[in-house]
Amino acid sequence: MERLPGFRDFYPEPLPHQDLWSADARQYIFDHWRTTAKRYGFREYDGPPLETLELFTTKSGGEIIGQLYNFKDKGERDIALRPEMTPTLARMIAAHERSYKKPVKWFALPQLFRYERAQKGRLREHFQLNADIIGESAAAADAELVALLIDTLRSLRLTEADFLVRLSSRNAWHDFFQQHQGKLEQEYDFYQVIDKLDREEPETNQEKLAALGFSLAEVMVFIEKAEPTAELQVILDNLAARGLHDYVKIDYSVIRGLAYYTGSVFEAFDRKGELRAIAGGGRYDNLIKLISGGKVNLPALGFGMGDVVLLELLKARGLLPKFDGALDVFCLIEDESLRRDSLKLVQDLREAGLVVDYSLTPAKPDKQFKRAQELRAARTLKLERSAASEMVARVKHLQTREEQTLGVAEAAKSLKAGVGR
Amino acid sequence: MERLPGFRDFYPEPLPHQDLWSADARQYIFDHWRTTAKRYGFREYDGPPLETLELFTTKSGGEIIGQLYNFKDKGERDIALRPEMTPTLARMIAAHERSYKKPVKWFALPQLFRYERAQKGRLREHFQLNADIIGESAAAADAELVALLIDTLRSLRLTEADFLVRLSSRNAWHDFFQQHQGKLEQEYDFYQVIDKLDREEPETNQEKLAALGFSLAEVMVFIEKAEPTAELQVILDNLAARGLHDYVKIDYSVIRGLAYYTGSVFEAFDRKGELRAIAGGGRYDNLIKLISGGKVNLPALGFGMGDVVLLELLKARGLLPKFDGALDVFCLIEDESLRRDSLKLVQDLREAGLVVDYSLTPAKPDKQFKRAQELRAARTLKLERSAASEMVARVKHLQTREEQTLGVAEAAKSLKAGVGR
Repeated sequence: MERLPGFRDFYPEPLPHQDLWSADARQYIFDHWRTTAKRYGFREYDGPPLETLELFTTKSGGEIIGQLYNFKDKGERDIALRPEMTPTLARMIAAHERSYKKPVKWFALPQLFRYERAQKGRLREHFQLNADIIGESAAAADAELVALLIDTLRSLRLTEADFLVRLSSRNAWHDFFQQHQGKLEQEYDFYQVIDKLDREEPETNQEKLAALGFSLAEVMVFIEKAEPTAELQVILDNLAARGLHDYVKIDYSVIRGLAYYTGSVFEAFDRKGELRAIAGGGRYDNLIKLISGGKVNLPALGFGMGDVVLLELLKARGLLPKFDGALDVFCLIEDESLRRDSLKLVQDLREAGLVVDYSLTPAKPDKQFKRAQELRAARTLKLERSAASEMVARVKHLQTREEQTLGVAEAAKSLKAGVGR
Repeated sequence: MERLPGFRDFYPEPLPHQDLWSADARQYIFDHWRTTAKRYGFREYDGPPLETLELFTTKSGGEIIGQLYNFKDKGERDIALRPEMTPTLARMIAAHERSYKKPVKWFALPQLFRYERAQKGRLREHFQLNADIIGESAAAADAELVALLIDTLRSLRLTEADFLVRLSSRNAWHDFFQQHQGKLEQEYDFYQVIDKLDREEPETNQEKLAALGFSLAEVMVFIEKAEPTAELQVILDNLAARGLHDYVKIDYSVIRGLAYYTGSVFEAFDRKGELRAIAGGGRYDNLIKLISGGKVNLPALGFGMGDVVLLELLKARGLLPKFDGALDVFCLIEDESLRRDSLKLVQDLREAGLVVDYSLTPAKPDKQFKRAQELRAARTLKLERSAASEMVARVKHLQTREEQTLGVAEAAKSLKAGVGR
């Protein structure tokens, strides 16, 4: 029986094949996402992986709607597996808005889904760090959020040589659009063309822009000038004060595909330009009002950072640690009459927080020792009877090959003292 | 816009209403599940939340099939949201069996789904700790797994006064069934009746058993005698050696509903008998062979522990800590000309691992201080210019109200030294 196309199994390391996904690397990324967000004072939330189809269809726009993983449930409801987290967050905030002091700083680690024609290697799910600030319209919030994005990547040992945040603004494009007499009802179409500039031929871009009353040349001049608006300058200055200036650059070719963005927008890219965007986000000051049917009106902004591109980048830069699941202690049981005492000791060490394993069934000494090595145990521990028939413990450090014979209580104490090594 | 019935949103604490679910309590439980499993040498894995319907329909049996959350995807495939993790694990193991040394000890923290008539308060999803040992047929593996179950609950500060593991065996029931001349093709029906004994009236039980050629009286005698089989005695002795004897008891009224169990089965209950089972599991020596179409044949066993009943129990026993998301430092910015320097300091402290927040925008001193208190900051930090126009830092401990004025570097150093408090 096979797993569904586009979905992933996650295995413990060492992985039997290079093309398998590592549960350990996933957890490593999750831990860093969580820790960094918390350092910034963000609090964790989560919603259901399933929502009503309606929650997404009118709000997200563009690519996301075309690729929704939706279906009818047994009650004939129209359901969608969440393609993004922001509408869920807006729904949750709208429901209990008054109970949380503003600005609200929240994060989540959702699994997100899409359904598109299955192509080789194309995934139908991924995980994302989602971080959002709600209830603050000042650009200082945008800077705080971009700083979190940068520090999340830095916590994984990526540097300014590895990635860059390209900062842009829907407001800048809105002004441009108005100054060039764009028609109000075509503004989102215009943004869609800008969003795809890099992916299309110049002729196609020229044609599409002409249909909307623009020339590719004037668009390119605007992008190349890259003059920060007053709002973006505030963000740049704020990031500079934190010493993060080298991680960010104005780039108006970024505009983001989603319909609901209203202010600053940004994407993080690898400097070599080999990968898709590592993260992206922006301001969506009208979404909560839209989702709540006008009941709650709060400015908001957020970003999402996916696990797939990030993992590729960390691999390419050699920044993933080895996840060998090393044991602190492997308990050798060579004398079966000492199994009960060994189990008691194993229990004692585990209760103290040590990672301990042993052979569940009687096995030859060399087989047990081999198993200890396979499991990358730091130490082996073996109970023995001394000549005086007293019970003693032999502790061996597998790397230094140092060996000690101690009283049982003494051995336990010494091993516990080394918790965390 | 509403969330789907039977699904949960998880909010950060303090919760605005008692009936909301806490993201912090969820994470607290997840952390303890993960840490305890690792101490036992279990490694983490995960599979997709969606699988082919087929993976579950022929293997699980009983209640699970009747409540499958299944649907047709856009490609007309029959899909199910996973109702349990074991078939996914069996599928994953079967695919890469040779690459992992036996016994394999794996755990996962999946979200599981079911679809039944929506009743008030009935959930359609929950989270589970799933722990499994694969490739070991000896009862020592059963004992290791039950010990993990017990220690997982103990890590959450539950004691033998709070819960009990009821240990039983399909083998014991199989022997009983044969000794009483049960018909082979009715054996699973018989198990289903035993599984529901507690939930039905004696008359109903008597009737159902009679139809299968048994009397309720002989069944009750067998249950009340509670004589451990040789296999169960090994498990009891093993647990006793670990000092866990008081947490476990033979109870043949436990038999488990799933079709695929083959040996020991067990369930953990609260001692007061107020809640549904906290956890349950057993041996399923034939499932991997079944799932792999005969290619891989490995003995296996596992248990699942859900988050919902566990949370109820922890609440009832007052064992949930307060999750106030306390800050290490709240930085007060009363002099806007010092905002840049304050941001630099905030950045420095966060990089050192401290949880730090500040007012994103200019605000009155008392408002900022109130915010620091709301966020339960341990300390406030404020940059000031001294009379000699030097920059100094005032650090205030909010509980003791102790206050110190230090050089900026000195203040940073002192705060960093207190990381983790």
